[in-house]
Amino acid sequence: MQQKIIPDIVIGRLPLYYRALQRMSSKGHTVTSSQELADTLGISAAQIRKDLSQFGEFGKQGTGYNVEYLADQLKKILKIDHVWDMVIVGAGDVGSALARYQGFQDRSLRVKMIFDSDPLKIGKELGNFIVKDISTLIDEIKKEGIKIAIIAVPENEAQEVTDTLIKAGIKAILNYAPIHIAVPPEIRLQCIDPALHLQRMTYYL
Amino acid sequence: MQQKIIPDIVIGRLPLYYRALQRMSSKGHTVTSSQELADTLGISAAQIRKDLSQFGEFGKQGTGYNVEYLADQLKKILKIDHVWDMVIVGAGDVGSALARYQGFQDRSLRVKMIFDSDPLKIGKELGNFIVKDISTLIDEIKKEGIKIAIIAVPENEAQEVTDTLIKAGIKAILNYAPIHIAVPPEIRLQCIDPALHLQRMTYYL
Repeated sequence: MQQKIIPDIVIGRLPLYYRALQRMSSKGHTVTSSQELADTLGISAAQIRKDLSQFGEFGKQGTGYNVEYLADQLKKILKIDHVWDMVIVGAGDVGSALARYQGFQDRSLRVKMIFDSDPLKIGKELGNFIVKDISTLIDEIKKEGIKIAIIAVPENEAQEVTDTLIKAGIKAILNYAPIHIAVPPEIRLQCIDPALHLQRMTYYL
Repeated sequence: MQQKIIPDIVIGRLPLYYRALQRMSSKGHTVTSSQELADTLGISAAQIRKDLSQFGEFGKQGTGYNVEYLADQLKKILKIDHVWDMVIVGAGDVGSALARYQGFQDRSLRVKMIFDSDPLKIGKELGNFIVKDISTLIDEIKKEGIKIAIIAVPENEAQEVTDTLIKAGIKAILNYAPIHIAVPPEIRLQCIDPALHLQRMTYYL
């Protein structure tokens, strides 16, 4: 199913569709349509049909999509049919909020450990975690075979932490440090910098 | 300068360029090139030149860009040549982390107030703020003429909060609730849901 190369922008919309389907399912809806998804998501029905058609035939003309079935298929495509463990590096405000974040539940994502380099933070409780010493990062990640990391360290530490994570076997990084970090082409990278989102909107005000 | 319609995807890259230029400036660099920006950002030099050329001639063939001048021009284009006040709605973990976030400093963004509906939170100190009662939201926003809001409430409250913010005169919303919220076309909306970013990467693992 994934032999042809699908544009990353299409892949980026699948989690949105999956999120909407999860919500429909939790409300007891059993059937939906590209039009209903479109109304829910603010994406055109044609775009949604086109995106989904890249992966197969999920609906029947006139009867729409079975919510559970389509959600299950998207889970398989996105490889979130099992839970992914993650590490957080940085136990400041952002890292702490992420360690306690409820939004990963039921979305096949689980924070497994949080690390910091600050002796005042190491060993302290944080939500359900004890903050670990960053010097143990490589061993701990290798031991657990974790592939996903969230970086929430100051920007001047972000590249060094990235390099260490990659050495430890991390393959996907979500970077909250407001700086571009360089990764080899085989490593997936996504960035969240709220100021960038906000500055993109001020243009229009 | 902004009479022609520039694609939003171009606008979305300008804050990235500005962030890189700010960083160069803070390191004392006075001149840069599209190639150096490209190496810093992982975006092609041709794309950067094309994006910037939409707004005028900022560099000279062979001598590159003056860092301060280009940063200043981008500030004007993005309308971040003055500070924008913002409100945060929701004083949970995410809202609290944002209220204390240092990453808005020097980026023309300033949190002015934070609101919650929980009597246990209202009136309490949070960073430099006292959490305000959400029932005063419309009056407070109108009084200050604030145009930008960050939503950090649970997903089942997000749409109602959105509608209230728009009534209060908010024109741009950054939504952290993991749900699609509907806004009229004249309202700018950006969303941050870390699980979506992460699920986009698991596909490739």
